[in-house]
Amino acid sequence: MDEFDLIRRITPKKTHQRSLVMGIGDDASVYQPHSHCEEVVCVDTMVEHVHFRFDFSTPFEVGFKALAVNVSDIAAMGGTPKYYLVSIAIPPHGDEAIVTALYEGMKALADTYHMDLIGGDTVATRSDFVITVTVIGEVPKGTACYRHSAQTGDVVFVTGELGSSAAGLSLLMHEVDPVMAVDPAFFLERHKMPQPHIAAGHICSSFPRVTLNDVSDGLASELNEIAEASHVTLEIEADKLPVHADLPLLRKEWLEWVLFGGEDFVLTGTIPEADWENFENQCKEKGIQVTRIGQVKHEQAASVILKEHDQQTTLRKKGYNHFKK
Amino acid sequence: MDEFDLIRRITPKKTHQRSLVMGIGDDASVYQPHSHCEEVVCVDTMVEHVHFRFDFSTPFEVGFKALAVNVSDIAAMGGTPKYYLVSIAIPPHGDEAIVTALYEGMKALADTYHMDLIGGDTVATRSDFVITVTVIGEVPKGTACYRHSAQTGDVVFVTGELGSSAAGLSLLMHEVDPVMAVDPAFFLERHKMPQPHIAAGHICSSFPRVTLNDVSDGLASELNEIAEASHVTLEIEADKLPVHADLPLLRKEWLEWVLFGGEDFVLTGTIPEADWENFENQCKEKGIQVTRIGQVKHEQAASVILKEHDQQTTLRKKGYNHFKK
Repeated sequence: MDEFDLIRRITPKKTHQRSLVMGIGDDASVYQPHSHCEEVVCVDTMVEHVHFRFDFSTPFEVGFKALAVNVSDIAAMGGTPKYYLVSIAIPPHGDEAIVTALYEGMKALADTYHMDLIGGDTVATRSDFVITVTVIGEVPKGTACYRHSAQTGDVVFVTGELGSSAAGLSLLMHEVDPVMAVDPAFFLERHKMPQPHIAAGHICSSFPRVTLNDVSDGLASELNEIAEASHVTLEIEADKLPVHADLPLLRKEWLEWVLFGGEDFVLTGTIPEADWENFENQCKEKGIQVTRIGQVKHEQAASVILKEHDQQTTLRKKGYNHFKK
Repeated sequence: MDEFDLIRRITPKKTHQRSLVMGIGDDASVYQPHSHCEEVVCVDTMVEHVHFRFDFSTPFEVGFKALAVNVSDIAAMGGTPKYYLVSIAIPPHGDEAIVTALYEGMKALADTYHMDLIGGDTVATRSDFVITVTVIGEVPKGTACYRHSAQTGDVVFVTGELGSSAAGLSLLMHEVDPVMAVDPAFFLERHKMPQPHIAAGHICSSFPRVTLNDVSDGLASELNEIAEASHVTLEIEADKLPVHADLPLLRKEWLEWVLFGGEDFVLTGTIPEADWENFENQCKEKGIQVTRIGQVKHEQAASVILKEHDQQTTLRKKGYNHFKK
């Protein structure tokens, strides 16, 4: 594989962002930030056989997801993604068709958000693909949604449905029987090509005090991060957690997927009770599913409680801990 | 190795940049760009056994270099580095001490430039370390140094000395005899811990029409990129190329190192003849070695010519091509 050829092939023919001064083709890219905005930056790496497998996902899907997980981090700040940089370590089994398809998968998502590829590196490695994506976005000054501002009485919410990605992975691993679901392809799609919730993030950042996380590591983990950063207790109700109708048909312990599965890339967070109705209406107007799943209870306790029937369970980041009644 | 522990250990205790709004600890970092500046961004990956070996370099040195190669790209735009993000894929043989030392090596260089670590990812891999560093810098609006503005009559220059890094690598590979050099450690240092030429880049960007590249792939390669982007011929003189006094003692074909060795991370480029004296004086005042090595000759030819005695040789990116007399 000729690196210069490859770079020529993946270099965008046209760019979207008018503030881009110099794209790929010099030592670094140059862009003019918007003066009323702050810059939002994140990076995430996906490793073959650790985060993805080419017998589960096509190279196009892997590329799409490698960018999606980063765009989702921008969504979780209430931001708008603008640019991305891609570094790929290519093993001996990585031919040009795979690499090209990885970039095409990224481009498919990037075009949705008018994002430009502005840099990267392609290097050789000895065993597995390693794909690192950096995304740069922006958010109007002072409106980014952090984790530390939740207060007693706030509503806990989630955008979209939970557990679908984990169900998709279980289907791919043959751990559950696809015949139980009306539409098993739905879950596979959610696992392989997650859709970042940028539009929902925008609504969140238009409110003055919203905490926000994207559900990458699992709902329990994300809510614990908000609880810790805000020094509050979040109480959520099991029967309020939004799931696809087929999910409970696939597995008796489906709540495991919902709480700890992760990779749903929906958003979860808190918003003042006084803003909830307006927030819910704005989401509805945009066709965004948003569900009230609980409430912020006590300050300075930093925990997440699951209410199920008459039982209360403390949710750790990675599992249950049944010491409360 | 516990990821949360590791993140806690590498998260900076204090930050330098006052424009940083939110550093490590949320879904993404947020900073306020300076309104009179453009943002400059690049990413580079180093792979164990491809770009570095722990029997040649300590983890601290590898970390230092992984950041240095990116900071050098910012220097080559005339910019100032501000932030960096680090993604490390860690193989089974990568213990906590190695990973910590990698970050310390980066921090040593970062502190020199008051750069803040604002994000990253640590993941597992099966065979080799893969270190991807993203650097974000800034440059006053409209002053970035690109490759495309060289014109007939311009001076071709280089900051610092050439070939030292390649000599250091040859010493490490036991290809040459260290006893020939007065100070072999000098060359090893240049290979293992290259110093980016940020201050030289600043002087370059203060002049209205400077082309600039950092010497990562070799002088011949960098000058060819400028020749291609500017549609000009660059003519350089072999006996003007600045080298360390010991370099010619190490190897008869030392000019190979100078022209094609790369990884010197000095800057090379062009500047109008009328600006040369002023430019040279400003460099001298700052203690920066700058050498006039040639001239821009004909427009629209896009080649690099080496004059050596009475012979002219066309320099390709990766080697000589003796078809000119």
